[in-house]
Amino acid sequence: MSIRAAVMTAPRAPIVVWNLAEPPLEPGGMLLETVASEVCGTDVHLYHGRLEGVPYPIVPGHVSVGRVGETNGVEHDALGAPLSPGDEVTFYDVHEVCNVCYHCTVAQQPNRCPSRKVYGITYSAHDGPLGGWAERIYLKPGVRIVRLPEGLPADQVIGGGCGLFTGFAAVERADPAMGDVVVVQGAGPVGLAAAAFAALRGAAVVAVIGAPQPRLDLALQLGADVALPLDLEVAARRDAVRELTGGRGADVVIEASGNPAAIPEALELLRDGGTYVVAGHYTDTGTAEINPHLHVNRRHADVRGQWGTDFRHIVRALRLLAKHRERLRFDRVIGGKYALTDAQRALDDVAALRVTKAVIDPRLG
Amino acid sequence: MSIRAAVMTAPRAPIVVWNLAEPPLEPGGMLLETVASEVCGTDVHLYHGRLEGVPYPIVPGHVSVGRVGETNGVEHDALGAPLSPGDEVTFYDVHEVCNVCYHCTVAQQPNRCPSRKVYGITYSAHDGPLGGWAERIYLKPGVRIVRLPEGLPADQVIGGGCGLFTGFAAVERADPAMGDVVVVQGAGPVGLAAAAFAALRGAAVVAVIGAPQPRLDLALQLGADVALPLDLEVAARRDAVRELTGGRGADVVIEASGNPAAIPEALELLRDGGTYVVAGHYTDTGTAEINPHLHVNRRHADVRGQWGTDFRHIVRALRLLAKHRERLRFDRVIGGKYALTDAQRALDDVAALRVTKAVIDPRLG
Amino acid sequence: MSIRAAVMTAPRAPIVVWNLAEPPLEPGGMLLETVASEVCGTDVHLYHGRLEGVPYPIVPGHVSVGRVGETNGVEHDALGAPLSPGDEVTFYDVHEVCNVCYHCTVAQQPNRCPSRKVYGITYSAHDGPLGGWAERIYLKPGVRIVRLPEGLPADQVIGGGCGLFTGFAAVERADPAMGDVVVVQGAGPVGLAAAAFAALRGAAVVAVIGAPQPRLDLALQLGADVALPLDLEVAARRDAVRELTGGRGADVVIEASGNPAAIPEALELLRDGGTYVVAGHYTDTGTAEINPHLHVNRRHADVRGQWGTDFRHIVRALRLLAKHRERLRFDRVIGGKYALTDAQRALDDVAALRVTKAVIDPRLG
Amino acid sequence: MSIRAAVMTAPRAPIVVWNLAEPPLEPGGMLLETVASEVCGTDVHLYHGRLEGVPYPIVPGHVSVGRVGETNGVEHDALGAPLSPGDEVTFYDVHEVCNVCYHCTVAQQPNRCPSRKVYGITYSAHDGPLGGWAERIYLKPGVRIVRLPEGLPADQVIGGGCGLFTGFAAVERADPAMGDVVVVQGAGPVGLAAAAFAALRGAAVVAVIGAPQPRLDLALQLGADVALPLDLEVAARRDAVRELTGGRGADVVIEASGNPAAIPEALELLRDGGTYVVAGHYTDTGTAEINPHLHVNRRHADVRGQWGTDFRHIVRALRLLAKHRERLRFDRVIGGKYALTDAQRALDDVAALRVTKAVIDPRLG
Repeated sequence: MSIRAAVMTAPRAPIVVWNLAEPPLEPGGMLLETVASEVCGTDVHLYHGRLEGVPYPIVPGHVSVGRVGETNGVEHDALGAPLSPGDEVTFYDVHEVCNVCYHCTVAQQPNRCPSRKVYGITYSAHDGPLGGWAERIYLKPGVRIVRLPEGLPADQVIGGGCGLFTGFAAVERADPAMGDVVVVQGAGPVGLAAAAFAALRGAAVVAVIGAPQPRLDLALQLGADVALPLDLEVAARRDAVRELTGGRGADVVIEASGNPAAIPEALELLRDGGTYVVAGHYTDTGTAEINPHLHVNRRHADVRGQWGTDFRHIVRALRLLAKHRERLRFDRVIGGKYALTDAQRALDDVAALRVTKAVIDPRLG
Repeated sequence: MSIRAAVMTAPRAPIVVWNLAEPPLEPGGMLLETVASEVCGTDVHLYHGRLEGVPYPIVPGHVSVGRVGETNGVEHDALGAPLSPGDEVTFYDVHEVCNVCYHCTVAQQPNRCPSRKVYGITYSAHDGPLGGWAERIYLKPGVRIVRLPEGLPADQVIGGGCGLFTGFAAVERADPAMGDVVVVQGAGPVGLAAAAFAALRGAAVVAVIGAPQPRLDLALQLGADVALPLDLEVAARRDAVRELTGGRGADVVIEASGNPAAIPEALELLRDGGTYVVAGHYTDTGTAEINPHLHVNRRHADVRGQWGTDFRHIVRALRLLAKHRERLRFDRVIGGKYALTDAQRALDDVAALRVTKAVIDPRLG
Repeated sequence: MSIRAAVMTAPRAPIVVWNLAEPPLEPGGMLLETVASEVCGTDVHLYHGRLEGVPYPIVPGHVSVGRVGETNGVEHDALGAPLSPGDEVTFYDVHEVCNVCYHCTVAQQPNRCPSRKVYGITYSAHDGPLGGWAERIYLKPGVRIVRLPEGLPADQVIGGGCGLFTGFAAVERADPAMGDVVVVQGAGPVGLAAAAFAALRGAAVVAVIGAPQPRLDLALQLGADVALPLDLEVAARRDAVRELTGGRGADVVIEASGNPAAIPEALELLRDGGTYVVAGHYTDTGTAEINPHLHVNRRHADVRGQWGTDFRHIVRALRLLAKHRERLRFDRVIGGKYALTDAQRALDDVAALRVTKAVIDPRLG
Repeated sequence: MSIRAAVMTAPRAPIVVWNLAEPPLEPGGMLLETVASEVCGTDVHLYHGRLEGVPYPIVPGHVSVGRVGETNGVEHDALGAPLSPGDEVTFYDVHEVCNVCYHCTVAQQPNRCPSRKVYGITYSAHDGPLGGWAERIYLKPGVRIVRLPEGLPADQVIGGGCGLFTGFAAVERADPAMGDVVVVQGAGPVGLAAAAFAALRGAAVVAVIGAPQPRLDLALQLGADVALPLDLEVAARRDAVRELTGGRGADVVIEASGNPAAIPEALELLRDGGTYVVAGHYTDTGTAEINPHLHVNRRHADVRGQWGTDFRHIVRALRLLAKHRERLRFDRVIGGKYALTDAQRALDDVAALRVTKAVIDPRLG
């Protein structure tokens, strides 16, 4: 029985639906019946050919939710929870890190492991349905699966998507103290999640700089205290942050904008001794000019890049999502659900910022 | 009895010798008979009027060694060691942080305390001999004094000077792991100290990029393993660091150059997940261009500014200096000793890089 | 004009009301019109003579709220907020740490500074109204004052009392990760606060072991998810924690019970690699038996003592208290308000556990 | 061709030499020609049946050095260094952690992974030569191999043995600051390594408590500054540590004795706010009595268990061993080399403390 999948055959080539052969189930492998797979900014970068070493044609879709289908001996998720057919699960898109090399073991940077694979990005469509824009996804042995916590709707996970986990990771890396003032630059999926988790982490004030207004409104619902629209001038934004902080500047700033201009602005917003996490630059959008004396040395600043996520971020974020599911309505980020045959339109809508998050639901067609 | 002092009356005005009135000894105050006071890069910045809010005329000299003279009830140093007349001591130039304000208590950044004073920089000569270029220095109550460890010659301390403590602080902030490869940018006083302490901290390899050759030779004597002269091209330096690190880049880079071009270079030298400490930009020497995607986000980098030092750095650095005094021959950094009447020449020699470290010894005249 | 104060003249001697002379206002000094001062477990220890070096007679009361009265030039609180007569403030009971000695500067343990003083504990009543059980409290120069955040009722602060800040400090020291399972041992003031702040810090589950039931109910209102009554047997408590954690044990346990038996129990509740903070042992209640192999080494455990608080804990806790004041109803911990003349009864009620928190309000008489 | 191996068939049964079948070489597998394998305290515990779940008969020997023999496609070590036949290597005894489960990913405690295997301990002799007391050791695919650094003799590695890496890990976990005073309890292999690495980490003073005198002498050669023999009474040891620390106590204590009495002693030796690492309790030797108030809470102590090592410890320790090989003469710890046929005698000599470290060299017979 073949599996329908939306395939990106080459940069800027129209997305087409292919019928992929059903892969043999290796011991420890599983077929997942796709419920929802996200279309995120990285998919737009893939479409524009901005990532290196991508083995087109590919089946995009790195964060997905599905139902447990046929398995070859998989009885538990990564954390030991029992799995039954039909259970809703998500999985960590990163796969096959070796746990042997320097990056995995000594530097403890598994995201730099040379054998690392990522569902929806580094597998060819010729290798099977190894991305979420497909009726069924083949989870190879060793893929780290998590059963969704009881009572947590799939849409609340997929509406956050990979931005949910990246935003979580950015907050973990920023390590704000209880009672800190945190500024988030950007109100896309990463920024919204960063704002939500900064609030849950015990910030006294979370301010989000972003646009358009509906995204800022959503940020406020998700836990932000203050919204600073982008049409405020940079100086007015700075004044607003000074006002919030007794003139001292933010304890923590989290970049989730992908805009190089955010960098020097943040270094002005930061208090002396503050922490800045750069989490939104997943592709090269140009350079930024900083003043080493004023911005870094004299400011005693901590500037930390956050590249990707680890599996623990997924697990921990899902726990909080389940606990606070009445507030963390990431399903509201979803701007539309699209059939496989509409994947191109979904991608275009995300690229044009017509929707914050598009979701592919292969059951729609 | 008056006190002779070399005074900087205004930016770029010739240094002159004044006779200052002997200050009254408050309870807890002490007069220190100056043995040696350093002339450092900051003094050159002061002379060029590059620091803000300096109350000229001033008596420069922020790091000094002296002998305990007349005191009003001071019987111990800050750590409880007994003090007797004639004992050699140094002291922490930073004074009068309030330990009450937000910076002191909540942000734990006492170097940003509004009431902070610094010997040799923020006191007016009209307030007394509150800098080291003077026969005697008045140590106000609460100045944090440390008796030099037994057997540690004053020249080994003053030859390191404030760079010794800044280099120590930079290594503390970089927090290299045992077995790391550390690259230091710069072979001036801060760079030499950073190299020496990185080696003592357990680095497997310490490489110093700098010039001229005698400074690099000194770096090797102080503990560095590899010297990379500045006349190597940037690409060759990068290749050398890749070679040292199995192609992965340095675990830690410490900037001690004051040159903005060092910033992007370091971010190329760093391994993924590495740490970069910017410790050499004590004055504004212009901007640097960085790529947020390549240099920070994707690199998962940690970039940390190090502004000034805390008293603990002084105490800890002196302990190691005493323990390793056979190797840590910072006295060799001293390029000349100058009378008060020669302070201008000392300053000129430092500004022109004719000497790495000049020392004022008021006993010479 | 004299100041009425309740005085503990000696261990186990009846509390009596004295008229103290109004102290002269030094520059930077302030008289605070007392609104409320707590009676806490430490006061019971004082009454039983269990603390060393206490200069009886004393005016107890180390955490208090008052209104700004007569001042000698105090215009701002420690954070720079303007102060006007009648403003409600609290203050950090610890005073006169030297910021010079080894403990203050090198070890960064100011609570061990030899010159440290504590309101309500280390000052003699002969030195003036230097404790909260008095109509007015003399705040000496340098006392760190914080204006209560707008809209935060005094009772919500004093109902938490010093336990509020100790519980906050315990959570800071435990440093739970987002999504962790946290167990708190004890449901007194420290335990209630620890539970509340652990929830605000992003724990997925907070379980409190304690008694009696009303305290556990309060814990649940303040943010705990699970209450484990003390009449459950130790084995049943352990089973409950295993159940909550997939059999692995708690990520974090916080001791707030003062009972040595809590120590080995916690080390059984902890997951491998978990963290245990001992925050409730403010006096010697005997020894505990641990197994170094099973409990520490093989468990890869982190056991951390938390002694006292720092000023930053006060500031940060108040910010969160203000933000979450609808949930953090610590006023409900208050079991009664007592006149100065009833201070003995207040103390007896706390000692007998008839009330969780007693409050002295000198305006009652 | 069969492989001779010394086999522990059951607790307290005499060690015998078996001929094991040569295992088939899986892809990624390698046969190592054994040069040296250690006999350590854990082997004595194995012999006494003190570890749970050991699948006797076993081939003991968890840390070994060998020469690259026949391989099935292994061309590089774990860090990418090329391997040729005859190259000397060591390998990480821990194997087959899953990198999927809660312990591996969320808690980041891979030593608790349920699928973890350890050479020389958890493999049956029926499964092949999976321990070091054998002519050849079969390294299964995924075993983490490190080529010995150029110029580092095998004896300097094996003389340290697993204690070398445990001592390194203990220092990493203690995280002493530069200039700290570090006390090590125990002068066996773990204690000697802890002392050596604490010195390399930048301690100002390293004091070792232990016996007999030759071990203390070795500690001094390896980097310790002070030796405190066990025949000093506990009070005299405490006085000595107070003397070294201006009366304040040690910044860091590392337990490497396996004696429960070390625990309360260490908590008395520690300064307020100091750190204690318990690294020597690899088996249950009974309980210790501590005072939660005096030893933990009031002391603001950090007590950290160190269970096992990670691969990074091996890599980093070897780098430092190579760099400092003139000082780190762990070969001097070797008390004797034994043929396979003498394995029983080797074990007896270690158990009786007749030698600090025994080494099996199968080339001797």
